[in-house]
Amino acid sequence: MAGNTFGQLFRLTTFGESHGSAIGGIIDGCPSGMELDIKFVNSELAKRKPGQSSVSSSRKEKDEITILSGIFEGKTTGAPIAFIIPNQDQKPEDYDHLKNVYRPSHADYTYKAKYGHTDYRGGGRASARETIARVAGGAVAKIYLNKFNIKIQAFVSQIGEIKISQEINKINLNKIDNNILRCPDEKVAAAMIKYLDKIKKEGDTVGGMISCKISGCPVGLGEPVFDKLQADLAKAMLSIQAVKGFEYGSGFSAAFMKGSEHNDEFVMKGNKIHTITNHSGGIQGGISNGEDIYFNVAFKPVSTIMQTQNTIDKKGKNVLLEGKGRHDVCVVPRAVPIVEAMAALVIADHCIRHHI
Amino acid sequence: MAGNTFGQLFRLTTFGESHGSAIGGIIDGCPSGMELDIKFVNSELAKRKPGQSSVSSSRKEKDEITILSGIFEGKTTGAPIAFIIPNQDQKPEDYDHLKNVYRPSHADYTYKAKYGHTDYRGGGRASARETIARVAGGAVAKIYLNKFNIKIQAFVSQIGEIKISQEINKINLNKIDNNILRCPDEKVAAAMIKYLDKIKKEGDTVGGMISCKISGCPVGLGEPVFDKLQADLAKAMLSIQAVKGFEYGSGFSAAFMKGSEHNDEFVMKGNKIHTITNHSGGIQGGISNGEDIYFNVAFKPVSTIMQTQNTIDKKGKNVLLEGKGRHDVCVVPRAVPIVEAMAALVIADHCIRHHI
Amino acid sequence: MAGNTFGQLFRLTTFGESHGSAIGGIIDGCPSGMELDIKFVNSELAKRKPGQSSVSSSRKEKDEITILSGIFEGKTTGAPIAFIIPNQDQKPEDYDHLKNVYRPSHADYTYKAKYGHTDYRGGGRASARETIARVAGGAVAKIYLNKFNIKIQAFVSQIGEIKISQEINKINLNKIDNNILRCPDEKVAAAMIKYLDKIKKEGDTVGGMISCKISGCPVGLGEPVFDKLQADLAKAMLSIQAVKGFEYGSGFSAAFMKGSEHNDEFVMKGNKIHTITNHSGGIQGGISNGEDIYFNVAFKPVSTIMQTQNTIDKKGKNVLLEGKGRHDVCVVPRAVPIVEAMAALVIADHCIRHHI
Amino acid sequence: MAGNTFGQLFRLTTFGESHGSAIGGIIDGCPSGMELDIKFVNSELAKRKPGQSSVSSSRKEKDEITILSGIFEGKTTGAPIAFIIPNQDQKPEDYDHLKNVYRPSHADYTYKAKYGHTDYRGGGRASARETIARVAGGAVAKIYLNKFNIKIQAFVSQIGEIKISQEINKINLNKIDNNILRCPDEKVAAAMIKYLDKIKKEGDTVGGMISCKISGCPVGLGEPVFDKLQADLAKAMLSIQAVKGFEYGSGFSAAFMKGSEHNDEFVMKGNKIHTITNHSGGIQGGISNGEDIYFNVAFKPVSTIMQTQNTIDKKGKNVLLEGKGRHDVCVVPRAVPIVEAMAALVIADHCIRHHI
Repeated sequence: MAGNTFGQLFRLTTFGESHGSAIGGIIDGCPSGMELDIKFVNSELAKRKPGQSSVSSSRKEKDEITILSGIFEGKTTGAPIAFIIPNQDQKPEDYDHLKNVYRPSHADYTYKAKYGHTDYRGGGRASARETIARVAGGAVAKIYLNKFNIKIQAFVSQIGEIKISQEINKINLNKIDNNILRCPDEKVAAAMIKYLDKIKKEGDTVGGMISCKISGCPVGLGEPVFDKLQADLAKAMLSIQAVKGFEYGSGFSAAFMKGSEHNDEFVMKGNKIHTITNHSGGIQGGISNGEDIYFNVAFKPVSTIMQTQNTIDKKGKNVLLEGKGRHDVCVVPRAVPIVEAMAALVIADHCIRHHI
Repeated sequence: MAGNTFGQLFRLTTFGESHGSAIGGIIDGCPSGMELDIKFVNSELAKRKPGQSSVSSSRKEKDEITILSGIFEGKTTGAPIAFIIPNQDQKPEDYDHLKNVYRPSHADYTYKAKYGHTDYRGGGRASARETIARVAGGAVAKIYLNKFNIKIQAFVSQIGEIKISQEINKINLNKIDNNILRCPDEKVAAAMIKYLDKIKKEGDTVGGMISCKISGCPVGLGEPVFDKLQADLAKAMLSIQAVKGFEYGSGFSAAFMKGSEHNDEFVMKGNKIHTITNHSGGIQGGISNGEDIYFNVAFKPVSTIMQTQNTIDKKGKNVLLEGKGRHDVCVVPRAVPIVEAMAALVIADHCIRHHI
Repeated sequence: MAGNTFGQLFRLTTFGESHGSAIGGIIDGCPSGMELDIKFVNSELAKRKPGQSSVSSSRKEKDEITILSGIFEGKTTGAPIAFIIPNQDQKPEDYDHLKNVYRPSHADYTYKAKYGHTDYRGGGRASARETIARVAGGAVAKIYLNKFNIKIQAFVSQIGEIKISQEINKINLNKIDNNILRCPDEKVAAAMIKYLDKIKKEGDTVGGMISCKISGCPVGLGEPVFDKLQADLAKAMLSIQAVKGFEYGSGFSAAFMKGSEHNDEFVMKGNKIHTITNHSGGIQGGISNGEDIYFNVAFKPVSTIMQTQNTIDKKGKNVLLEGKGRHDVCVVPRAVPIVEAMAALVIADHCIRHHI
Repeated sequence: MAGNTFGQLFRLTTFGESHGSAIGGIIDGCPSGMELDIKFVNSELAKRKPGQSSVSSSRKEKDEITILSGIFEGKTTGAPIAFIIPNQDQKPEDYDHLKNVYRPSHADYTYKAKYGHTDYRGGGRASARETIARVAGGAVAKIYLNKFNIKIQAFVSQIGEIKISQEINKINLNKIDNNILRCPDEKVAAAMIKYLDKIKKEGDTVGGMISCKISGCPVGLGEPVFDKLQADLAKAMLSIQAVKGFEYGSGFSAAFMKGSEHNDEFVMKGNKIHTITNHSGGIQGGISNGEDIYFNVAFKPVSTIMQTQNTIDKKGKNVLLEGKGRHDVCVVPRAVPIVEAMAALVIADHCIRHHI
C-alpha cells in the first residue's frame, strides 16, 4: 500500500517525478454526465504555477492538462479520468551537484534509506511539483461540488511574523485574488511583500499559514469514528509537503477555553437549524452540521535556501552545501490552490460516501 | 465505507455504543507468534477509566478485556483478535431527558440528521466510551512495537491557561504517571489541580493539550505522497473526540520561522546519520528519519457542563438544558492513553507496510 | 491485509476459531432504520447447523446469535453491527491426536508454514465453523435486499454422480426445503440419500454442486473493469472452504458454443427491456441487466474421512492417520445457506456501491 | 469505489476507452531497485495484439508502451509506474451505426442504463482493448516474480468442440508458442485452425478454454478467509471480458469424486514436503502449498458476429443489426497473455502481502 491514492469513493491516484516526462493521475469514481470545463482546470493549475512573481520559483512551464480518458463529448462517462501535465522545463544537469548530498530538511536521506535506488533530480517524487496532480484532481472535485453550491476558499493569513488578525468570518474573501500573495487584507499583503523582499535579499525563506473556509456543505458529511470529516481534512493537509500543523474551528485556542464559552448553542433561523457561534468549525461528532467549515494550515519555510549549509554526503562525509538553483522565498501563496484542491477531494469523497 | 476501521495492514475495526451491551473490536493483521500480555492491556484500559479522580466522570466500570479469538496458548496465531469490554454501569434512564434535545456541541443533531434512527443514550456511538476499543487495540500495537524498542509516551502539557513551558526533549517523561493529571512537571500539575477545582465549582469544563513523543522508530516508516507518516498521525489524532488541532515538530511556530533557522543539518554521530536540531519532528518527506517524533494535540473543553444552556429540541422548539449527570471537568488526562493508542496503531501499521 | 474483511461498502469482518470461545463478526455499512429480525437470522444459522441429519456432522450447538451493537429499539442505527455465536460443544481433547500431524488436503500444513504458531484444534480458523459468521452477515444482507425484492435461492444440484439434469429456470425452487439435502427434485434427492448412505458406510465422503439463482436485481449492479459483478461473485464463492469452481450463465459450456447460439437478443416486454435467452446469466459487461443471475459452485469431498491415510507429521516422519472424530459425509447441503449468504453480501455491497 | 484498481499491495489502476487517445495505467507498490525490461513488456503486449493471424481482428496498432514515471536509470524507484499505450487505429466513424443500438450480449445496454452518458465507440471502456493495460501491468508483475523463479504459463486447451484431452502435467508447455493458437498440442492445434476457418466462413464466432499453470510458488501465499489465493485468482479471471467460469485443481470434476480419491497425501521428497497427487491445485486452506497451481478459464464466443441479428435500439424499437466491422472469430488465443497477466498480478500481490 504505497500511498499514491487519496480518497475512498472519489479517488485520485497520482504519479510523476519532478524531472520525469510528466506528472499526472487517474480520478476514479467521478459521477457520469458532468460537464468538464478544461479551462477551469487549467486556471487552477495556473494558480500554483511557479514564476508568478518575484517571490516564487522561476521554473517556467505551461502546465496545461491533457485528458486521456473518461470524457466523451465534453462530459464525464463514469470511466476513470486520466490526465497528464508534461514536464517541460527540465534541467537535470542543475541537480548534478546534489546527486551525492543529503540536503538539510529535504527528503533525500529518507528516500535513499527507504528505497535504495531513487531519482534525486529535483527531489524526484518528493518535489512540490507532485502537487500539480492534486490541483488537477481537486479542480475536477470542485466542478462536482459546484452543483451542490459547495464553495472552497483558501487564502494566505500569515507569512513569517506578519499575519491577519481578523476572524475568518469578518474577512472579505472576494479580495483573495487581488494580490499575488492571495492575502485578502491589502495592508497586510503589502507588509508581507516588503517582508519577503527582505528575506529574499538575505537568501533565506520563510513559513506561513493558509486559512480555508468551506461553505454550503449539507448536514451529514463525515463518518462517525475514524473517518470523521476533520480527520480526513487533517490527513489531506498534512499530506502536503511542508505542512506542519492543522487546526479547525476553535483549534489550538480551544485548549484555553471553558465549555461555557466554547459550546455552540443551537437556534432556529427560519426553518433551519443553526448554531449561534461556530467554535465547532462546522463539524460535530465528525459530521458536518451545515455551518461553515474553517481551518488553518501551518507551513514551514522552504528548505532550499541561498545560504551555505553544513550537511553530509551519501558516504557520511561532512560537506558544505552552497545555495543555488531555483527556489521560492515563500511557498505559501502557491500552496493556496493545493489546500483548496485537497479540501475539495475530501468533501467530494464524503459527498459520495454520504450518497448526496 | 462507514469508517469504523483504522489502518491498512494492522487494522482495527471497532463497534459499540455507550449504553449497548459491550464495546469491542477486531484487530486484523497482527503478526503471529507474539505473546499477548493481557495484564498490560488491562493496565492500559485502566488509564482511561472514568472515576480515577475527582476531576473525571464518576461512571464506574471494571473495564477488563475479554479476548474471543486469535490467541492460542498465550500467543497470537495470525488470526483476527476479537475482544469485548462489557458495559456495566449503564443507567439509560439517566438519559431520558436528553431523548428529544440537541445538546450544544454534541453529536446529537448531526447523528439524527445523518441516520434518522439513533441510539441517543449517553451519546451512543459518539460517546467517548467508544475510545476504550482504541486503547485495547493500541495496547496490542504497543506490544508489537515493543519488540522493535519503539516507545510512545504522551502526557498533559496544558490545561486551560496553565501549561508546561519547557521543550519536550527537556522534560523528564518518567514522571508522567506521578500524578493523576499525567503532567510530568509537578509544579505545573499542582497548579492544574487547583485550577480544575475552581472550574469544577463553576460547573464548567476546560480544554487542554497533550504532547507525545515516539522514540526508537527506524528510518523509513511512512509513504511518500498521501500516506505520509505525519498525515496518518494527524488523521489518527483528529479522529479522537474533542480534538481540534494537531502539529508535529516545529508545528504552528514554523509559520514564523526562516529556512536558515528551521533546517535540520545532517551530521554523523558514530556511524549513524542524525540531525543536529529536530524541527522536522523526526519525519522528512513523510518518512521517519530516525530522530524522535513528537507532536501536540489540542482538545476542546467537554461539552457537557453543569450550567443551564439554551438549545432546541427535535421539533425545533427552544428549550433550556439543565446540567446534570456524569461528566468530566477536563477529559485531557484520560485522553493520554487514547493519544498513545492511536499513535501506536499508526506506527504499527507503517512498520508492517514498510516490512520491518 | 490479512483478508478477514469482505465487501467494500457493506463490509463483513469476521473472527473466531473452531475451538475458541466464539465465532462472530462486525457488519459495517448497513443502512440505518432497518428492522432487524433476529428470528430470521437464527433460522438462517439453523440451516448450516451440524447434526441436521444422519449425513452431516454430529456436533451439537445451539448456534444462536447475540447482537452486541448497532441495533436500537429493534432497528439498525448505521453504527457497526457486532455479533457473536458462542462455541459450545468444544472437545479440544478430540484433537490431541492431530496436534502434530498434517492431515491430507486440510490446511494444517499451509497454516503451520505461514504462521508458525497455530491453533490446530478442529482446524482453528480454517474450520468450516468459520462460515457461521458469513451466514449471520449474509442474513443481515438478505434483510436489506428484501426491501428491493431481491431474492437469492441456492440448492443442491449434484452430489457425487447424481445430479439434476433440468435447466435452472425449469426447476421449482419452492421445493428446496422439502428435503434435508436441499435438492428441489424429489426423485434426485431420494437417489442422493441412498448414495450418501452407501458412501457413509464406506467411511468415505463425496463432493457435489450448488446452483444459485438471484432474481429481482435492478439493472446496473457491478462495476465495469475489475469489480464486475461476476468477478465479485466468483471471489465470494471461491472463498468458501472446499469450493473448486464457479461458473455463471452459460458457464463452461460456453466454450463449446458459437456466437450465434450464445448471443442474447434484446426485446421489449411491455415497456421493459429484456433478453430472449439468458446465456449472459443476467450480467453483461460486468453489470446486471435485470434478468435472473444464476451460477454453479463445485465442492470437493470433505477431507476428513473414516479411512486410514498415509501422511507425515510435523517432523516429516511418515505416519498413518486413522479416521475418527466428527465429520460430514457430504458438506454440500449445509453449504447452501453459505452460498446464499456470500451471494447476498456481494449483491448488498453492489447495491450500495450503485446508490440504489 | 468504481472498480478500476486491482490488487491490495501490488496495485494496478487502469484507464482508457477503445477510441479515446490512449489506454494506460498506474502500478503502485512495485518494489524499488528492479530492472524494468521494456522489450519484455512490449513482447507481452505483442502477444495480445490484434491482427496476428487470419483468425483475429484486423485492427493494426503498434502497441508499444511509454513509461511516464517510476523508472530512473532503467530501474524502479518505488514510485508509481505510470504507462500509456496510444490508440492509433481509431476509426470512430465505423461505429456510427452502433450509436443508437443495443448489440446482443455486449455492454451497450447495461452501460447506458448505469451511466446515462457513455462512449459508445467500439465499446468504450467495455472494449477488450482495455486489457492491454492489464497485460502491461502483468508484465511488470512477471518481472518481479521472475526473481523468485515463479513462472506462469497459460495456453489454449479448447476451442469450440476441439480440446486437449491430456492432463496438464503431461503437456509439453515449451510448445505453447509453436503455433498461432497457443495450443501446445500440435495435432489439436491443427484441428482447431481448420475448425476456425469453417466458423469464420459462417460469419460466426466460437468460445474456448485457457488452462494455466503457476510453478515455483513458495509455500504461504494467500490469506485464510476471504482472500484465499484461489478466490483472488477467480476474481481476476472473471474480471476478464467474456470469461464465464473458473476452476482450479480438480475443479468441477471434484463434485464427482470421493474423499479417498481426492485427498492429496503428504510425503517427503528429500527434505521438502510434497503431496503425491495434486487435486488441491497447489492451494490448501486458501494458501499455496508449494505444488503447481493450475486452473482453467472458460470463454464465451465473441458477441460480434457477421450475421444479422434481432435487437432493439435506445428507443426500444426492434431493429436488425447487420454484421460488419472488425472482429475476432475466436478471442481465446489472444486472451492467453491476459490470463497470464491477471495471474501474475494476483501472485505478485500475494507475495508482497506475505512479505516474501
